[in-house]
Formats: sequence, C-alpha cells, structure tokens
Amino acid sequence: MLKTLYYKNNKLYILNQKLLPGKISYCECKTYLDVTKCIKNMIIRGAPAIGIAAGFGIVLASKQKEFSDFNELIEFLEKARKIISDARPTAVNLFWALERIFNIVYNTKIKSVNFILKKIEIEAKKILSEDIQINKKISMYGEKLFKKDSVVLTHCNAGSLATGGYGTALGVIFSAFKHKKIKMVYVNETRPYLQGTRLTTFELKYNKIPYTLICDNAAGYVIKNKKVDLIIVGADRIALNGDVANKIGTYSLAVLAKYHRINFFVAAPISSIDFDIKTGDEIKIEERSKQDFFEFLDKKIYTENMRIYNPNFDITPNYLVSAIITEKGIIYPPYNKNLMKLKEIL
Amino acid sequence: MLKTLYYKNNKLYILNQKLLPGKISYCECKTYLDVTKCIKNMIIRGAPAIGIAAGFGIVLASKQKEFSDFNELIEFLEKARKIISDARPTAVNLFWALERIFNIVYNTKIKSVNFILKKIEIEAKKILSEDIQINKKISMYGEKLFKKDSVVLTHCNAGSLATGGYGTALGVIFSAFKHKKIKMVYVNETRPYLQGTRLTTFELKYNKIPYTLICDNAAGYVIKNKKVDLIIVGADRIALNGDVANKIGTYSLAVLAKYHRINFFVAAPISSIDFDIKTGDEIKIEERSKQDFFEFLDKKIYTENMRIYNPNFDITPNYLVSAIITEKGIIYPPYNKNLMKLKEIL
Repeated sequence: MLKTLYYKNNKLYILNQKLLPGKISYCECKTYLDVTKCIKNMIIRGAPAIGIAAGFGIVLASKQKEFSDFNELIEFLEKARKIISDARPTAVNLFWALERIFNIVYNTKIKSVNFILKKIEIEAKKILSEDIQINKKISMYGEKLFKKDSVVLTHCNAGSLATGGYGTALGVIFSAFKHKKIKMVYVNETRPYLQGTRLTTFELKYNKIPYTLICDNAAGYVIKNKKVDLIIVGADRIALNGDVANKIGTYSLAVLAKYHRINFFVAAPISSIDFDIKTGDEIKIEERSKQDFFEFLDKKIYTENMRIYNPNFDITPNYLVSAIITEKGIIYPPYNKNLMKLKEIL
Repeated sequence: MLKTLYYKNNKLYILNQKLLPGKISYCECKTYLDVTKCIKNMIIRGAPAIGIAAGFGIVLASKQKEFSDFNELIEFLEKARKIISDARPTAVNLFWALERIFNIVYNTKIKSVNFILKKIEIEAKKILSEDIQINKKISMYGEKLFKKDSVVLTHCNAGSLATGGYGTALGVIFSAFKHKKIKMVYVNETRPYLQGTRLTTFELKYNKIPYTLICDNAAGYVIKNKKVDLIIVGADRIALNGDVANKIGTYSLAVLAKYHRINFFVAAPISSIDFDIKTGDEIKIEERSKQDFFEFLDKKIYTENMRIYNPNFDITPNYLVSAIITEKGIIYPPYNKNLMKLKEIL
C-alpha cells in the first residue's frame, strides 16, 4: 500500500490524498508551516495520520533554523505548536501527538539543543512506527467480532491512508478478510470529501477485498435489503463517556444500525480517546467552507450565495455504540466505567 | 418560476433539468422518441412531470405521421406507449397518464382519426392543467400540518420542476411559508443526481424562502442539532398499504424521523397511488448506471471497474409515514383502510 507519509533527508513527504485515486503525488514539506497547510487543506486527513504529521511538524520546526539556546528553541517550537494545533480542531490525535513531543522536550534533563533535536526526531518516528503496531493490534481484537461471511458497511476512510499504516476500522476489515470472514464491504461515498469513493475503495481494491460503493443516502436501503451484519467506523475523538466524534454521517449510520438491530463498532487507538472531556458535547465540531462542499462536484453546479451548512464531523452518543475496539482490547458499555479503567492501566 | 414543460406548435418543450441551475435551456421534442429520451435521461424527472410528459409523448406520436384509419393509429400509438412505458420503471404517474390517454382513445364512440387526435391533445393538456390545481390543493391541506416557525427538512425535488407547476412537498412548503410558518428549510443535496442542490435550492431561492443546503449524510446531525420539526417529501409510487417509493435516501430519513420522534410526511397526488399493488415489495426499484453515479462529480475521481450499486429509489414502509397529503385531503394510518376508502370515492 502507498505510504501516507514518510520522513527522509530532513523533509516530510505527505501523500496528497486530494488527488487520489487519479494521481499519486507527495507534497514535500520543509517547514512546519508546510505541514500545517497539508493538514488544514486535508491533503493529509484521518485522526491518527494527522497526529503523526503534527509530530513531524515539530521535527521540521526544530530544524528549520539555528537555535542559540534551549529557551530560543522552546519559544520557536511553542509558536509552531500553536499554529499546528489550529490547523484542525476535532481530531484529538493532533493535540495528543504534540503533547507527547513536548513532554519529551520539557522532561529532558539535558537542556542541550542538539540533544533535544535528536529526541524530538526519535519521538516523532516512534509515534509513526507505534501507530502501525497499534493498528495491527486493533485489527487482531476487532476481527474476532466478525462472523463468517459478514456483510459490512463502512464510512469515510479509516484505513492505511488515515493512519501511519494498516488502518483502524479498515484494518479490522483487512484482518477479518484474511480470516475469510468478509463477504462484502459496502462503502459510503462520504460526501463532501468522498473519502469513501476515493480512498476506501482504493484500499479495498488494492487488498482484493470485495466492495461496493454506494451513495451515503443509500445506506438505509442497503442495510435493510443487502442484509448488512455490522457497521464499523473510525473515530476522530472519543469522550470519556464513549461519545464518538467522527466524520459527518456517522451519527445517521449509528441510528440506522440501532433501528435495524445490527452492531455499530468504532475502531480507534487510545490516542483518539480524550480522557479530559466527559461527553461529546465538549467536542468542537469543525465546519468547513462552501468551497469544500463543491470541491469534488462539477463546478457548474455552484452558484454564488448558495447557503450551505457543512459540518465536517458529528457526535454519535455512547448508547448507539456497540463496542470500541482499541489496541488494549475491546471496550464495551458502560463506557464511563470501562474507559476510566483503561485510563488507569495506561 | 420556470415552466417544467410546455406544448406549442405541435412540439413539446422540456426544460433540461440536468443543466440547472447553471443554464436554462429547453429540449425541443418533435416525436415521442424525443420525449422518451428526455424521460430516460432525466432531462425531465419527478413523478408527476414524467406523467405529463408521457401524455404529450402520445400527442406527438399521434401527429408525427399520417394515419389512414383508426386501426393504423392505434397500432402506432400502442407501439409508442410501450416504448415510453419502458423509459423509467418506478414512478407510477407515467403509466397512469398513459392509461388515461388510452382510455380516451378506446372509449370514444367516434372512430375518426382527426377526432381522436384532438381528444388526445385535449386530454394531455388537461393532465397538465389539472396537475397544477391538484398541487395547490395538496399544499392547502398540507400547510395545516405545520406549526409556526417550523424547521423543515426535504429531500430531492418535489417542487414546481417535478410537476406541472407549484409542486407537491415543496408546494406545501411554499404554502406554509405564505402563512408565515417556515423558519428554515434544510435541503438534502440528494446524491447522485443532486436534485436538492440543483433544483430545490433554486426553487426556494426564487420564492425567497430561507434554506440551507446540506450533505445527505448530515441529515441526522441536523435533525438532532438544528431542531428539525418535520420532514416532508414527495413520492414516485404509493402502494395500497401506504408503503412509499421515493428517491433513494427517503427511507433513511424516515428512520431518522422515527428515531427523533418527528413527523415524516409524504405529499403526492392520487395519481401517484398505485391501487393495483398491495405493498411496496411489488414496486420495481430502478437501478441506474455508474455513469449516473459520477455524472456530477469531478471526472478525475472515476476509475475503471469501480464497483457501484446505484439504486435510484427506496421503499419507506407505511409505519414510518406519519401522513400522506393528497388533493383529496390528508390520509392517516391505517393506510390499507383509508387508501381503500379514497379509492372508493374516486
């Protein structure tokens, strides 16, 4: 599979996902502002991938000028952190990765600039390599939830391209397929960004997994008439009570799952859990522009002053979530209690 | 508002809805095959509008050659009927209008070609003019279901452009707006054909009604967070038990309405009720092509051999429908009993 991003010769190369599947092209990032731009413009997307990119953003910041001392370095990195943090508000992995990098910076006993530069780079690379391992663990646990010949529905892209590699929700599907448990994967096209159409079908095809692309509004009809067994999605942020922020449309799917009495699973690394917030009400939902809404549509459709509401995420309340699949195992309700337990063992 | 279609100098002019809102252009139809093509390619769409166009299709057939006697005329018209009937399978109005025209043809006592030609033209014009009156009656009844400052959600286009004029579901909204009952209309973009984006916002804007366009998958989030009071849609065919065939996505919306305990109304003329079928299971759901799926998307997204399922309609079971608004009044459950009663008074 294509690499979502890679670091080489002091540069971060980010796969331009806006051009997929038509064109494979990497954006060369020399500065943290280049990385910020890639995150903001959704050239890279997917909560874990954004976190990894943010980590390397700090690496680039630490190398893009000479620092005479520790304080000067810190000042510059904190400025970079602020700017990268503002790129997108919903995925918690962005803040988590930055926090992890800065913990290294602040907790070091040796206040030498060169030493810290090395430590930052090691940590950013660790976040990337760990992410792939985490996804494999998620897939290992998640696969057990599938029965033979499952018909699955997924939304957006929670695959290799949304992460450091392998994927969360799609990783689970890959693993279930290896165990001969997948009959068909229905893929929501996922308007407005069409991550389903452009990215998820691309990954499923690459892995030779049977898929069928549908319009988002056909999900109800397909669940009912094609005997969908379960829905599985990723997450951008999970509150302590199990409320899940994920791509717009996830909430509608969770309601459809409830109505049709099928399981609705969320697969996400623990870095997507925000232990600081009690419920989904505290999660900021990013709204995106009119331009985004029309990005992949025939431009003739767009008319000036069309009034549009374009929320990028929604919140699925915990009582609609059958289980949350993490690298530490499957978490079932009551989430308040069980996510708190998870926090304690971390 | 723009005319959906008009008949002039022995030609039918059909507004090309595929070019809206960017371009206003009418297709000139000289033959019934021209009309068939317009219906098949969705240049004209919307169940009532398709019915009206089909009626004029027979008018054009009756004029496009010389007939030496009644039998020759009948033979040719039956051939035309067969071909027009095959244009699209789901909307019952198509078959209803053709039946109505042919009843005139077969029930006439004077078997003169010229006399029948006139009768056919009169009947086709009557179907058109009656449709507008019917829609006004639907809107008059439907408006009463709205309370002050309603926040409404609609899907696809059941407006002036889907009918001879004024519209069904959108007609009700127009009427409610006149009575100062509309605070906001949320419009589903309605993939893949984007009738919401292209047609419904166009009509609402023209009538100065506050609207907001959303992605179909945002409907659940919007219903929950923007306090939507009711959903109203049109219908392509209604079975005797109240099951409703309508644009793909309608079923998902009906489930969302049920879950959020808001009303889900269907507005449709009696010509959309198929008294010959007992349940929605008997309705043929049209599947459309891959080309249709990508019609309004950036062509770069499309890749060869992408596996797509593109049902154009779905069936909403009667128990999810709060009421059916017709020109004869509002029909409530139990539909089996109440639609049968309606049939009896016709």
